[in-house]
Amino acid sequence: MPGPLPPLSHDAKRAVVLLSGGLDSATVLAMANAEGYATHCLSFAYGQRQAIELDNAAEVARALGAVEQRVIHVDLAAFGGSALTASLAVPKDRATDAMQHGVPITYVPARNTIFLSLALAYAEVLGAFDLFIGANAVDFSGYPDCRPEFIAAFEQLANVATGAAQSGRGHFRVHAPLLRMSKAEIIQAGVALGVDYGITHSCYDPEGQLACGHCDACILRREGFRAARVADPTRYVQKEGAA
Amino acid sequence: MPGPLPPLSHDAKRAVVLLSGGLDSATVLAMANAEGYATHCLSFAYGQRQAIELDNAAEVARALGAVEQRVIHVDLAAFGGSALTASLAVPKDRATDAMQHGVPITYVPARNTIFLSLALAYAEVLGAFDLFIGANAVDFSGYPDCRPEFIAAFEQLANVATGAAQSGRGHFRVHAPLLRMSKAEIIQAGVALGVDYGITHSCYDPEGQLACGHCDACILRREGFRAARVADPTRYVQKEGAA
Repeated sequence: MPGPLPPLSHDAKRAVVLLSGGLDSATVLAMANAEGYATHCLSFAYGQRQAIELDNAAEVARALGAVEQRVIHVDLAAFGGSALTASLAVPKDRATDAMQHGVPITYVPARNTIFLSLALAYAEVLGAFDLFIGANAVDFSGYPDCRPEFIAAFEQLANVATGAAQSGRGHFRVHAPLLRMSKAEIIQAGVALGVDYGITHSCYDPEGQLACGHCDACILRREGFRAARVADPTRYVQKEGAA
Repeated sequence: MPGPLPPLSHDAKRAVVLLSGGLDSATVLAMANAEGYATHCLSFAYGQRQAIELDNAAEVARALGAVEQRVIHVDLAAFGGSALTASLAVPKDRATDAMQHGVPITYVPARNTIFLSLALAYAEVLGAFDLFIGANAVDFSGYPDCRPEFIAAFEQLANVATGAAQSGRGHFRVHAPLLRMSKAEIIQAGVALGVDYGITHSCYDPEGQLACGHCDACILRREGFRAARVADPTRYVQKEGAA
C-alpha cells in the first residue's frame, strides 16, 4: 500500500506517465511536466533483457522532477514469444526501411495494453485521469500497439472499465504526444525542454550501460540525433558503433 | 519461457481461460472444455488477501482437464485502493440489494482490464484467439469491469492491439458466458457439466480453506446454492454461517 501522497500546489492535476528509461518516454515526461501535471511515473520489470533501463528510468524521474516513480513487477517473460524477453536473437544492422515491414521479433505481445492497464489502475487509485505514453507510429510502425487506433481504443476502454469513469468523476485521456513525430523531432522537443539524453537508454541488447550500436533501437536513435543536428551522448560498446 | 506445447487433436482450438479458483471461473472452464477448446488457464498472484484461491485454481484446472495452468505474478497491492489487496475491512453481512449500489470497496482498480491484457499476451504467444472470463453483470453489477460494455470494449481493443490481429491471422473474441446469468443458473449449468464446487473458493476473507460465510462473495454463493436447490459444499468457519 502506498504511503500518503505528496501535497500538490493549488491547481496541479496528477498524471501517470509510463517511463521506460528510454529517449521517448523521457521526452514525454518532460512534456507532461511542461503542461503543468504532477507526474507519477510507472516503470516495469517485465523480464526484459535490457533491465538496465530501470536504472535510467529512476535517474530520469529524479532529473526531471517527477513527484514519484514506481517499479511494478510483471513477468511477461513467462509467456515467451519476443526477442526482448526470451532467448531469441535481437536483429542487428537492419536498414531503417526494413524495420517498417511486418511485426518485429522485438515486439512483446500486448505489452502496451498491459502497461496502460496497470497505469489505469494506478491512475484510479490516485484520482488521476491523464495517462501519458511514448508510443510512436513513425519509427515503430511495425508495432501494432504504437498506432493511433490502439491509443483511441484503449482510451475508450478506460472510460467503461473503471469505477472512476462509471461514477462520472472524470474522463480518462491517453496522451501520446510523440505519436506522429520523427525521432529527430522528438529529440529537438526534448532538448528544448532540458532533457539530458545522456541518462536515457534505448538499446535492446546492451552490455552493462553501453549500447550495442547495431540493434533497431540504437540505429533509430543514432539516426535521430544525426537528423536533429544534436550531439549524440550515447556511450556505445565499440568506437566504430558511435561513428 | 514456456516449454513445448502439448500436441492437440486434429481440429481443437486453443483458448485462454481466466481461472481464479472461484465458482464462476470454474464453470467457465467447464463450458470452454464442453465447446471443444483446448484450455490454457491463467491465474494471478496479485497480492489478494484470499491467495488461498490459487490452490483451488490449480485443483480445478486438474479436475476439469485443462491443457495447462499458469500463475502470473503482478503486484496490484503496490497500488492499494481495494479491500481485497490492502488493509481495508471487507464488508460483512450486507443484504444482497445493498451490494447493487455503487462501486464496492472490494473492487480492485482495473483488475479485469489487467487480467484480460495478460490473457491477450498469452493468447498471442499460443496462437489462440479466444479468451474466456467469468465476468457477471447480475450479482456484481457494482463492478464496472463486469459489464457487457466493458467486454465489448476490450474485444475491440484486442483486435487493434496485437500483431496477431494486425496480420490478419484471426479475430479475437472475449467470451463471457456468465454475463447475464444468475448465480443459481451458473451453479445449475456447472453441475450439469460435472463441476465439483467443493474444490472452488469464493470467500474474500477466508481463514485457511474455510470461508467466512459473511462477506458479499459468501452471501451470493450461499444464496446461489439455495436458489439452485443444490447442496452447498462450502466449508465455513462457523456452523451458523452455513445455515
